[in-house]
Amino acid sequence: MDISSLGEFGLIRRLTENISLKNASSVKGVGDDAAVLKYNKKEVLITTDLLLEGIHFDLTYVPLKHLGYKSAVVNFSDIYAMNGTPKQITVSLGISNRFSVENLEDFYEGLKLACEVYGVDIVGGDTSASLTGLCISITCIGEVEKSKVTYRTGAKDTDLICVSGDLGAAYMGLQLLEREKTVFKGESDFTPDFTGKEYLLERQLKPEARKDIAQFLAEKEIVPTSMIDVSDGLSSELLHICYESKVGCRIYEERIPIDYQTAVMAEQFNMNLTTAALNGGEDYELLFTVPLALHEQITEMKGVSVIGHICKQSLGSALITRDGNEIALQAQGWNSLS
Amino acid sequence: MDISSLGEFGLIRRLTENISLKNASSVKGVGDDAAVLKYNKKEVLITTDLLLEGIHFDLTYVPLKHLGYKSAVVNFSDIYAMNGTPKQITVSLGISNRFSVENLEDFYEGLKLACEVYGVDIVGGDTSASLTGLCISITCIGEVEKSKVTYRTGAKDTDLICVSGDLGAAYMGLQLLEREKTVFKGESDFTPDFTGKEYLLERQLKPEARKDIAQFLAEKEIVPTSMIDVSDGLSSELLHICYESKVGCRIYEERIPIDYQTAVMAEQFNMNLTTAALNGGEDYELLFTVPLALHEQITEMKGVSVIGHICKQSLGSALITRDGNEIALQAQGWNSLS
Repeated sequence: MDISSLGEFGLIRRLTENISLKNASSVKGVGDDAAVLKYNKKEVLITTDLLLEGIHFDLTYVPLKHLGYKSAVVNFSDIYAMNGTPKQITVSLGISNRFSVENLEDFYEGLKLACEVYGVDIVGGDTSASLTGLCISITCIGEVEKSKVTYRTGAKDTDLICVSGDLGAAYMGLQLLEREKTVFKGESDFTPDFTGKEYLLERQLKPEARKDIAQFLAEKEIVPTSMIDVSDGLSSELLHICYESKVGCRIYEERIPIDYQTAVMAEQFNMNLTTAALNGGEDYELLFTVPLALHEQITEMKGVSVIGHICKQSLGSALITRDGNEIALQAQGWNSLS
Repeated sequence: MDISSLGEFGLIRRLTENISLKNASSVKGVGDDAAVLKYNKKEVLITTDLLLEGIHFDLTYVPLKHLGYKSAVVNFSDIYAMNGTPKQITVSLGISNRFSVENLEDFYEGLKLACEVYGVDIVGGDTSASLTGLCISITCIGEVEKSKVTYRTGAKDTDLICVSGDLGAAYMGLQLLEREKTVFKGESDFTPDFTGKEYLLERQLKPEARKDIAQFLAEKEIVPTSMIDVSDGLSSELLHICYESKVGCRIYEERIPIDYQTAVMAEQFNMNLTTAALNGGEDYELLFTVPLALHEQITEMKGVSVIGHICKQSLGSALITRDGNEIALQAQGWNSLS
């Protein structure tokens, strides 16, 4: 169905007609000049992400449903990185004329699924034509108790550096998709073989935010001294924490968590595995610091690795390689503007 | 200066380094995974607007400083339309490589000026490369007392229909700029003559949100039964109120407020003046309804016109022309998707 047959308001009604509000803080959602929310005792968190076709995603191999899911999840990840809980999103779309109503319904299906899984309400947005590619802007609103807000600024000398899950897999998934796209060109009956690489594709196409880590920290009553989510690469994020906290760090190459599929793929691509894990990005894992005294509690946490420690700023930020060398960390992660 | 010489984080630091937070509800602004806000007793309002080059603005004649100002103001207008006060914005930009750091500083200058005038804090955002044109996504957060929230849903039979300021001028300003652009093509020493049309240009290039009307309503302790801002044209907005409130309306052609510059321009362009005022859009005036009993108080309000009244839904929504004919209102206003 052609979008122009519905017009802006018809399209919005069609995409949002089945949306019901689940959260007590969502007073009024889609359908007025602004959404109305009620946050009584908790602090309100606001984060926003802009995703542009050709820069952040390639519709040649990204299904719209997955894109909808991922667009929501990357925002939730920012809220968890503040030690908060995502509660609402607004969704703005710029749509070029090659999209059908069904395409947008696919996108919304992914969006709604993510919202269902993470307990988030869609409360508003804006829909417009775009002269060129698809443009997605999502703003996420979350809540957090005042005593639990976790900034990038609180890391202290001797704190442990912890990271959830494993790193570099989403980047390898992207390399794989890009390679198959190149191979595919001009062959209409080409079916790429992704056997044994499912994890890499899933990490790239349908990432999850670490809701479970936030819950675990809450249960154990641990408030990290600093926290950030790994979107642009471990190295870049760690340097953000060090810069904002005015500290340095040492991390150990051998402790960086890497999945075996990531390692196999790096071998096949003849890429340095540690570099991929440090700079790949789009992992959406949580990187955080805790006081040294919590060492035992943290090592009990399933799916969390202690990869190093914070030190004085004057000592700089470095990786200790397997053979004991120190290499200064550099922000070589993903940066669309450089 | 080339943007790539700064990179994403350098650019963000440069654009936001002088930003200080003015509002008590702004706890933490730019520089972490999310902004932190504190809204204790009031409801939180969220609205978002996407502005795309070639669809919503033409950089041939829109200076970036004006664009920054307008991008912020159109969001403030949505918050006033809920009877609230704007407090924070987040700003996401997709930037093509023809922009310099100085261009973005111009844009931010306009943005900061609007925030200063309206008492709003810039608390976050996202900055990315764009393969094509400039892409601007702004989300505005505001506050309102629970008892004062004004939806589109509360208009009742016999309510008065009121509108602030005058209508159609921004649309005429756009026609004027488009005409001069056409005339200009190919003539490098061409200087357009806008004498006597300054008001039309100002309404198009540097619109204001009706903060004063919101304040007046608060002082007089008037809570409108419904309210919306006029962004897509009076006709379209009035139909939104009627649809959401399940009512009809009658408005009178002779009562629609129109500036004389708008009238002169319509004459020159051989356009129907009432059609321009009904469907032009981008007026950013407030359209609201109040109980009939408030007639005297409303007529005392400077800059507010009573243009008609609400009636039963079965009677439909119509314009009464100067010669007494009834014409059904149609949503012919601006709609990028049809």
